[in-house]
Amino acid sequence: MTKDRKTTRQGPPKYGPADSMVTPRFSGVRTYARLPHVVDIGQDVDVAVIGVPFDTGGTYRVGARFGPEHIRSASALMRPYHYASHVAVFEQLSVVDYGDLPVVPGYIEESQRRITKALLEVLRAGVIPIDLGGDHSIALPELRAFAEVNGKVALIQLDSHSDTNSAYFDLPHTHGTPIFHAVKEGLIDTSHSIQVGLRGPIYSEREYEIPREMGMDVVTAIDAHELGMAAVADRIAARVGNSKVFLSFDIDFIDPAYAPATGTPEIGGFTTWEAQSILRRLGGINYVGFDVVEVIPEYDVAENTSFVAANVVYEFLALLARNRRDGVTKG
Amino acid sequence: MTKDRKTTRQGPPKYGPADSMVTPRFSGVRTYARLPHVVDIGQDVDVAVIGVPFDTGGTYRVGARFGPEHIRSASALMRPYHYASHVAVFEQLSVVDYGDLPVVPGYIEESQRRITKALLEVLRAGVIPIDLGGDHSIALPELRAFAEVNGKVALIQLDSHSDTNSAYFDLPHTHGTPIFHAVKEGLIDTSHSIQVGLRGPIYSEREYEIPREMGMDVVTAIDAHELGMAAVADRIAARVGNSKVFLSFDIDFIDPAYAPATGTPEIGGFTTWEAQSILRRLGGINYVGFDVVEVIPEYDVAENTSFVAANVVYEFLALLARNRRDGVTKG
Amino acid sequence: MTKDRKTTRQGPPKYGPADSMVTPRFSGVRTYARLPHVVDIGQDVDVAVIGVPFDTGGTYRVGARFGPEHIRSASALMRPYHYASHVAVFEQLSVVDYGDLPVVPGYIEESQRRITKALLEVLRAGVIPIDLGGDHSIALPELRAFAEVNGKVALIQLDSHSDTNSAYFDLPHTHGTPIFHAVKEGLIDTSHSIQVGLRGPIYSEREYEIPREMGMDVVTAIDAHELGMAAVADRIAARVGNSKVFLSFDIDFIDPAYAPATGTPEIGGFTTWEAQSILRRLGGINYVGFDVVEVIPEYDVAENTSFVAANVVYEFLALLARNRRDGVTKG
Amino acid sequence: MTKDRKTTRQGPPKYGPADSMVTPRFSGVRTYARLPHVVDIGQDVDVAVIGVPFDTGGTYRVGARFGPEHIRSASALMRPYHYASHVAVFEQLSVVDYGDLPVVPGYIEESQRRITKALLEVLRAGVIPIDLGGDHSIALPELRAFAEVNGKVALIQLDSHSDTNSAYFDLPHTHGTPIFHAVKEGLIDTSHSIQVGLRGPIYSEREYEIPREMGMDVVTAIDAHELGMAAVADRIAARVGNSKVFLSFDIDFIDPAYAPATGTPEIGGFTTWEAQSILRRLGGINYVGFDVVEVIPEYDVAENTSFVAANVVYEFLALLARNRRDGVTKG
Amino acid sequence: MTKDRKTTRQGPPKYGPADSMVTPRFSGVRTYARLPHVVDIGQDVDVAVIGVPFDTGGTYRVGARFGPEHIRSASALMRPYHYASHVAVFEQLSVVDYGDLPVVPGYIEESQRRITKALLEVLRAGVIPIDLGGDHSIALPELRAFAEVNGKVALIQLDSHSDTNSAYFDLPHTHGTPIFHAVKEGLIDTSHSIQVGLRGPIYSEREYEIPREMGMDVVTAIDAHELGMAAVADRIAARVGNSKVFLSFDIDFIDPAYAPATGTPEIGGFTTWEAQSILRRLGGINYVGFDVVEVIPEYDVAENTSFVAANVVYEFLALLARNRRDGVTKG
Amino acid sequence: MTKDRKTTRQGPPKYGPADSMVTPRFSGVRTYARLPHVVDIGQDVDVAVIGVPFDTGGTYRVGARFGPEHIRSASALMRPYHYASHVAVFEQLSVVDYGDLPVVPGYIEESQRRITKALLEVLRAGVIPIDLGGDHSIALPELRAFAEVNGKVALIQLDSHSDTNSAYFDLPHTHGTPIFHAVKEGLIDTSHSIQVGLRGPIYSEREYEIPREMGMDVVTAIDAHELGMAAVADRIAARVGNSKVFLSFDIDFIDPAYAPATGTPEIGGFTTWEAQSILRRLGGINYVGFDVVEVIPEYDVAENTSFVAANVVYEFLALLARNRRDGVTKG
Repeated sequence: MTKDRKTTRQGPPKYGPADSMVTPRFSGVRTYARLPHVVDIGQDVDVAVIGVPFDTGGTYRVGARFGPEHIRSASALMRPYHYASHVAVFEQLSVVDYGDLPVVPGYIEESQRRITKALLEVLRAGVIPIDLGGDHSIALPELRAFAEVNGKVALIQLDSHSDTNSAYFDLPHTHGTPIFHAVKEGLIDTSHSIQVGLRGPIYSEREYEIPREMGMDVVTAIDAHELGMAAVADRIAARVGNSKVFLSFDIDFIDPAYAPATGTPEIGGFTTWEAQSILRRLGGINYVGFDVVEVIPEYDVAENTSFVAANVVYEFLALLARNRRDGVTKG
Repeated sequence: MTKDRKTTRQGPPKYGPADSMVTPRFSGVRTYARLPHVVDIGQDVDVAVIGVPFDTGGTYRVGARFGPEHIRSASALMRPYHYASHVAVFEQLSVVDYGDLPVVPGYIEESQRRITKALLEVLRAGVIPIDLGGDHSIALPELRAFAEVNGKVALIQLDSHSDTNSAYFDLPHTHGTPIFHAVKEGLIDTSHSIQVGLRGPIYSEREYEIPREMGMDVVTAIDAHELGMAAVADRIAARVGNSKVFLSFDIDFIDPAYAPATGTPEIGGFTTWEAQSILRRLGGINYVGFDVVEVIPEYDVAENTSFVAANVVYEFLALLARNRRDGVTKG
Repeated sequence: MTKDRKTTRQGPPKYGPADSMVTPRFSGVRTYARLPHVVDIGQDVDVAVIGVPFDTGGTYRVGARFGPEHIRSASALMRPYHYASHVAVFEQLSVVDYGDLPVVPGYIEESQRRITKALLEVLRAGVIPIDLGGDHSIALPELRAFAEVNGKVALIQLDSHSDTNSAYFDLPHTHGTPIFHAVKEGLIDTSHSIQVGLRGPIYSEREYEIPREMGMDVVTAIDAHELGMAAVADRIAARVGNSKVFLSFDIDFIDPAYAPATGTPEIGGFTTWEAQSILRRLGGINYVGFDVVEVIPEYDVAENTSFVAANVVYEFLALLARNRRDGVTKG
Repeated sequence: MTKDRKTTRQGPPKYGPADSMVTPRFSGVRTYARLPHVVDIGQDVDVAVIGVPFDTGGTYRVGARFGPEHIRSASALMRPYHYASHVAVFEQLSVVDYGDLPVVPGYIEESQRRITKALLEVLRAGVIPIDLGGDHSIALPELRAFAEVNGKVALIQLDSHSDTNSAYFDLPHTHGTPIFHAVKEGLIDTSHSIQVGLRGPIYSEREYEIPREMGMDVVTAIDAHELGMAAVADRIAARVGNSKVFLSFDIDFIDPAYAPATGTPEIGGFTTWEAQSILRRLGGINYVGFDVVEVIPEYDVAENTSFVAANVVYEFLALLARNRRDGVTKG
Repeated sequence: MTKDRKTTRQGPPKYGPADSMVTPRFSGVRTYARLPHVVDIGQDVDVAVIGVPFDTGGTYRVGARFGPEHIRSASALMRPYHYASHVAVFEQLSVVDYGDLPVVPGYIEESQRRITKALLEVLRAGVIPIDLGGDHSIALPELRAFAEVNGKVALIQLDSHSDTNSAYFDLPHTHGTPIFHAVKEGLIDTSHSIQVGLRGPIYSEREYEIPREMGMDVVTAIDAHELGMAAVADRIAARVGNSKVFLSFDIDFIDPAYAPATGTPEIGGFTTWEAQSILRRLGGINYVGFDVVEVIPEYDVAENTSFVAANVVYEFLALLARNRRDGVTKG
Repeated sequence: MTKDRKTTRQGPPKYGPADSMVTPRFSGVRTYARLPHVVDIGQDVDVAVIGVPFDTGGTYRVGARFGPEHIRSASALMRPYHYASHVAVFEQLSVVDYGDLPVVPGYIEESQRRITKALLEVLRAGVIPIDLGGDHSIALPELRAFAEVNGKVALIQLDSHSDTNSAYFDLPHTHGTPIFHAVKEGLIDTSHSIQVGLRGPIYSEREYEIPREMGMDVVTAIDAHELGMAAVADRIAARVGNSKVFLSFDIDFIDPAYAPATGTPEIGGFTTWEAQSILRRLGGINYVGFDVVEVIPEYDVAENTSFVAANVVYEFLALLARNRRDGVTKG
């Protein structure tokens, strides 16, 4: 079982970003937000940003294996204070860049095993992971690890696709199937889970019925545009309640005008301000982990998509920092 | 006169897209939405997607001749079910990719003749065309064909420019003049026509007075932003009533952040969600044809603009599929 | 002291753009909006568009030295009538492209001296400058010139950053420090000044306290999104009142989806329609000068960012043209 | 056994490209060189250009699944006469675009099975395939098909890598291993096979010893630069003699200045003129098939790489056309 | 008849580039090589660099209308001394940027008339023009002007295409036909003319027979690669002898690795060093004019192609400067 | 004085690259060639790859501050064996990535001080630095450090510019002046120094006379093309003899077709094969340090330029590895 991190680490955070008043932000070996690259993690670390450069699950465009590199690169612009929540992130949290988990390009099941195994080491050290995909197929090995440590977890999925297909071409694993398998394997507490942002041409009405039949709440993009972001956030928060939560953010939740570099874009999406408006209302939740997936940098312009992803990670950090500041303990 | 397609075709649609559960969407010779490339069309075809790779009318950036190719490429991501209207598009409609109409690069009047002649063959087969431009100068030969078969048609023009100039440099035809000539030639029923989205620096106040003097309704972008998309859609629907309608969608209606690859962009435009919000409210109209024009792929990023255009075409298909499903017969 | 331009120039404007009905807009040596390149300015000129190709102040991405070139290039699409304010810009104003001010790449203090000196010549000729940056460090030498001629000026700063740092690496001048130095040097009437759009991860809460302590009003992006653009514009207008005003527009005020080509982007920003909505409500103000800064063209797609900047300049011209048409005389 | 195509097809070729004097080269659905897309092939077809959009074998950059699409697009510029060999290609050969072979993205062994099976249908129809990759892992299923029909074949491999690794990460199949497995499975007559162009940093001296130990001749890039292209071509021709030959052209044989869009580029490579100089000297050889692989279009500029690949395919066609014209029958 | 410029202009050149030791090369309104933009030319001008932004003749890619702008932009890097010929270019020649000739986009015959008429004014002022295309269709109106003033001229054409087709689609004018019409109109002294660099797939053997039958010498790319550049240059010089010469440089003479941004590229081309090696051996020739055509900037990388073109223009200037320095008077 | 590293380090190298058979080359935090990032260097390190992200010296294009990041990224493709010299690089040398030296963007003299000081720490640890620029202005602080430790050093400069200007705009330091100042400060033993590859339009004949007057040998690009690479290499080797040598490689030595991403490109340059042909003949020289400068990644295509630079660094490593293997001790 996960230790309660808040109580074990004493004193100020051990790890934080390089000081940009001493060396410029464009200098140095690129890690997330200029954090130290630390692979030996234990009590001194609260959160680890971790690359999962796997993209064999991509069914259309590919190249998300370079996602972690480019999100790290774009994250050099992150500064330490999150104004919207008035929190100095790295005064609350000890955060490191853990590097990348091992994967085998071209072999999805072997990679799943390696990802789960490696992620378990992080979780067992009591560290909250923020994973940088990679395509969305990594959600399955992530959820296996989360469930192994926490039991079933609630899922907040911001995404334009449900990812609850059972197979493509009679073969089980792609970036369109992880949630199907995770539910089938009993890794997700669907009664406290929610998918938000689904849109685009689909195969049939069944695509959105399936997650509902699995027990999840579904807020399509059409619904979300009509509800407004505050109401969407309220619905998410109400849904997950006190559960242990894995928040998975598929970058294609964001409209391709804002985040073009992704594998299966859908128009009619959300602005970054809308995404921030949701995320910033999701404080006080008992998170066990996060990911941001489906950034394919070769399709980007001016690193816009990687920069959006780097900011999404920063919002995750701010949520955790607020929780710690506010003494939130749930679950 | 156009036959009533709904009553002539019996049984299920003959033509539909390749099954993406059998071959991946990125495979095969690129046609719109993986539809069969069929040039011998008759009773078995309801709708034909048709390239019109002509761009000699461009007055600033050029290269829309590659528009059809890239819209086809991006359309590989279209799936068969339109969730917003709950319609399985290709269960209602038999749709083909007809290939491209003949054009002569560099010779606008000769190309106009060839386009009209070729389009007439399609119309006389009772098939509804969805044309992929090309620059907006193709609207004139299109309207000549529509009027030849249907008499005057009502025009819904979503565009940031009125295209009602009479000439440039004392010569009559460019992508800024087709509506002028079409009105002058009596091809458009201006009393049921409407232009929406006009904006940008213009030459003089006359630019927006001219279409109004021609009898058209004009909703500038400023008006549209203030009215909201639902009211704009209502105004369009009320305007066209039971007329036979040609809907012409200039991609520069969409803001360049969402659709950068166009010839004469204007800022302060509309999001794709706003465009969808209008189009999805335009059901039950008696369409005789559609086009989407002014995509210049060489200026694109991540195929965003071509992808928007492919989705606009998909919205057109959904309107027709809904009409058929709902037994709409107008005109 | 500045002469009142309205009363000195008699008759129609001497200088205006090339007629795009005679030569196409893509032809000719590129100046802003196809205006004549005139360096000998006096009574015949109301407004000068001026390049300031300096970027040594950039702390992250660099290359704004090519900003003036690309804004000029994109401005070929500007037409002479501003529909939103129903003003024929160049019937009201005599406008020229003055070329670029002298700078020394790599030497910020020497460049500041040369910029101020050269700008003073323009101001002393009674001409209102619209400066094309260049990075935001040029605001300091601009303000020195404005204050020399006008005394303290009020500042309207649309920007995602406050630019009120005192130093980086113990050295005083970058694009993050000009407003600090300008206030310290007594160039700005902070009691009538306002910063709008501040956002992004910051170093500490102090970043936004500093400009407030300096006496300026600060509207963060979060505030602005909540207030709406009309209210923001009202607040700006009320703030500056009858002061002499320098309006400085950092292109990163606009969201990177709309304006990717900038040095330190921040997500959660504003659309071009929102920017227009503010600017168009800022008529009747006593402007002494403008700039648009931080365009780094090499990061652009389809010249989108340069095109936004060219349009922002056009909005400035429209404000001045309206003022002249309406006989506004303030200050 | 393969039928002798030369004697079975009577009369002029049935299939050839669209006439570019009737419709412009940029128009129409994109097939290789504007050839008809024909899937029902038999006696009327000599050569089929075939896409194999598989890229799960890529170990660094990925995206070769879009290779066939882009090579087809760039091939619109191919004209019918090969001046260097004074042959009217399509007067000698009946050529079609067969579309793409079935693949399952993410599953390399299943894809290999489907590729081999589908290719066998082509070979058994007596048609010579020219395959458009895809990554180089497709060479294994190709060679399985060739060997099934022809027995062991000789290999001409123009490539900067030997592709004779046995495994990566203890797993057998990537684009670096096909030749290892093909040799091990007895598909290649190594005594008449040759690899040309090997270069770049390697893992150890063993990398070039392995293919030699397998019995192949190896001409490194250093050797080739010193020998000159004519001598290289002579060595190839002498090596293969009268064998049945599969010519596999990895686009990274060409220097990345000429062909940037590839997965594992190596500097110090060959110009297109050098490649043409080799290929044009390889007439009179008994080819059973060809491929061009490793084009990853997303990394391209101005379609340069796809255009090089389209030209390499054209050189293959010219070799076959010359053979037929000259009545060459070998093997 | 052309005046002998050498004898009429007395004293040092009136016009030369801005001093890059005073203002940086990236500053100022972009003209060729930072030369003054002068439209009133007479005795004080030896050479005028002139844009001809016309591209309606393009049969594949289009957009050469932006060629003059981008060649001017890239030419900012030109410095005043040509080391290879040890000549201070602007100490010998008075050179201006004349701006662009008038064209009508979309109307080729009208544009030809305007181009010829405008060019005649330049020629009649005794000024040698260096034209920046635009597509190669401009060669016809150029040659009409040259012949009007000089009688038949000899042509040196460096190009990968002969451009001697008579028509496309039964219509006479494209960028593939200007030399056909020019010869037919008797504008070219074919007995002293030469085409160098022809290559690529062609329509038939006739393509290269036609220019030979017209009386021109033809050096294909294959010939040129075998002869070497020195021998090619000797053959050109011998061919033109003392004729009045128009040198037309199609940028596709250069290999697309070096000059990707062109409309109908052909692989197997020439390096820039090879092009320089030819041009630098063509001193002492009696030039009446030059052009460089077919740069389509939107397909460029890092302005490479525009930069090559700017350098080709610089080589032209050096040839003229050497002629003047050396007192060469021919014809 | 530098210790003789060969004799001090005992046993196998402590530091080498991550094993690409264990984790894929695209994974992990990016360091040069997947080497460990080590800042505490001493006896265990032979060579340190070091970023110097400074670009305030750039006089035209800027952005070389991102050079180290992108060279590191592209270097993931480096494998450990250098076939041309048959040396296993990391079996001979212990190599680390030292990260970046401290710089202050916008302040060249302060940055020079910090660079020299930081580099001295490396040199005094007996470690040979390979510096990744940054623009060429870093050569001055590098040479100050080399001279402080070694006395005057010989310079091998592969470059298209001499960089021996004394000033721009009356100010002393840019990327065009470092060699002037270094010679003036007595840091370079010009009698054993050589500049190779100079070309392009220059300001005057003086540009190439100055380095010769300083005592250096100069081989222009024209000379080098005529001599051939082997002779050039021999001339370099003979020139430097037994001196302590700093080899500075400006990426613009390479032709822009091969290396487009640089600040002041010059056509008529060298291929990567030609560069390799020179470098591989420069074994047995007593190197004290290296750099590769002027990579501006934002202008790149497919990381080609960064990849060339990564390979140039690899050639440097191979030279040092050969020296160690061969027991070379000079000076």
